[in-house]
Amino acid sequence: MVRLDGTGDGAVARRGGEEHLAAEEPLELRIGGRPFTVTMRTPGDDFDLVAGHLVSEGVLGSPADVVRMKFCSADNGCTSTAYTDGELSLAFADGDPLNIVDVTLAPGVELPEERLRRSSYVSSACGVCGKTSIDAVQATARWAVADDDVKVSAETLFTLPDRMREAQKVFAKTGGLHAAALFTAEGELVCLREDVGRHNAVDKVLGWALRADRLPLRGHVLAVSGRASFELVQKAIAGGIPVLAAVSAPSSLAVTLAADSGLTVVGFLRGRTANVYSGAERVIA
Amino acid sequence: MVRLDGTGDGAVARRGGEEHLAAEEPLELRIGGRPFTVTMRTPGDDFDLVAGHLVSEGVLGSPADVVRMKFCSADNGCTSTAYTDGELSLAFADGDPLNIVDVTLAPGVELPEERLRRSSYVSSACGVCGKTSIDAVQATARWAVADDDVKVSAETLFTLPDRMREAQKVFAKTGGLHAAALFTAEGELVCLREDVGRHNAVDKVLGWALRADRLPLRGHVLAVSGRASFELVQKAIAGGIPVLAAVSAPSSLAVTLAADSGLTVVGFLRGRTANVYSGAERVIA
Repeated sequence: MVRLDGTGDGAVARRGGEEHLAAEEPLELRIGGRPFTVTMRTPGDDFDLVAGHLVSEGVLGSPADVVRMKFCSADNGCTSTAYTDGELSLAFADGDPLNIVDVTLAPGVELPEERLRRSSYVSSACGVCGKTSIDAVQATARWAVADDDVKVSAETLFTLPDRMREAQKVFAKTGGLHAAALFTAEGELVCLREDVGRHNAVDKVLGWALRADRLPLRGHVLAVSGRASFELVQKAIAGGIPVLAAVSAPSSLAVTLAADSGLTVVGFLRGRTANVYSGAERVIA
Repeated sequence: MVRLDGTGDGAVARRGGEEHLAAEEPLELRIGGRPFTVTMRTPGDDFDLVAGHLVSEGVLGSPADVVRMKFCSADNGCTSTAYTDGELSLAFADGDPLNIVDVTLAPGVELPEERLRRSSYVSSACGVCGKTSIDAVQATARWAVADDDVKVSAETLFTLPDRMREAQKVFAKTGGLHAAALFTAEGELVCLREDVGRHNAVDKVLGWALRADRLPLRGHVLAVSGRASFELVQKAIAGGIPVLAAVSAPSSLAVTLAADSGLTVVGFLRGRTANVYSGAERVIA
């Protein structure tokens, strides 16, 4: 790495020590031995990521929906890593990285191929538009967040970004990881996960909750380090989380989905100011 | 929208005027009338987005590879919007939003379904790992960036983020849009595109370049407002762009791919400092 420094008299280039970079590797998700999807992610908490991805897709709702998860090599030779053992070893004995996870679903857990593909829920016979996207999310949702009457104080919300950053041990080193953090309504940190992809960080939180048998996450607040997109609102709803608090801006469709579903969306949560875009009745000033 | 303000004596909630939010809507890409993929994007420059997505996937390399692009309604009734007409109208006459684009490829342009799926290039018979991901990108690339001997001064690099932000008319209003900006090596802005998704912003730039018959983009610098992920490095390579400059951090695999491919990656481009992670011979201090 070369460090460019133009703060003094002219620009200087110094060959520096290696920067600690956020790790990114492909992860292949297989279901019953068949390839399902591949995502680029930061290795670690991979069983949480896989479980949470399937929660987001509406496939999983409780720990009983999964028989086991295992790391596999490319030829489907699987390790005996049990579902409940979430610790990550660095590689197989032969040096293959742990980049394939195979999930065995419980009998009766449906895997509607077409419905599950990420793209499917935004495509329907009646047209492609925000409205059909919202309808599809609501048709898949297992829990309603609209009837969750939890209250969160503005003072508690103001503290969340700093407490999330404090908990991000890796962040300080790399600056390249997105975070998702689950808090109680009183602001107690319950679970923090990081990833190069913000959607993966949220999936890791949802997967942790599934495996801990804590879904739906009624009465909780999900804080995210970046923007609140349609996809992140959809994931909050999939986890039954009534409040989503983002450091940056939400999108138009994210707010529409949240308002239609009874989810509270807080954005631009910076210092001691924030905007509440939907579900403001849960926020106490 | 409710604005929370805790900067004074206690927290105050004010019901405010509507915030201008970044628009997000689904876009379905069809090829020859068949659904290919759906992405969430900010409407606008949709033909650029579609063309650039197919450049990234290795399908398109020149304007001649496309016969035409048209907006369609869900039942495949297409408007007569010509390929060269990139202006976005807001909706069909019946109120349907313009969220479906159908592309007619030129004869002989191959659409290897499996190779094209985003997931495919990270999955191979020899295993799933960073190395196979890199091999797949290099096998798809039409142009080599390694032999591009362009030089860029540190002083020029330092100016790019501010000039990109100045050009982002929308950004100032919403704070929610990612930007990708193409510059000459002397720092002249050539093309700026925005989107709620950073990968879409880059695809819009690549699609603009394809349609303007400017691929490969030798001697250019691509600046992005966020992180430099593996995917963004892959897109820079797909466009033949020798220098990628990001405001935030690159990932480990992004730097490995860049170094293997001869791409210059600049990260943490803030104020008058930056890090050069690969291809430092192109940067003059």
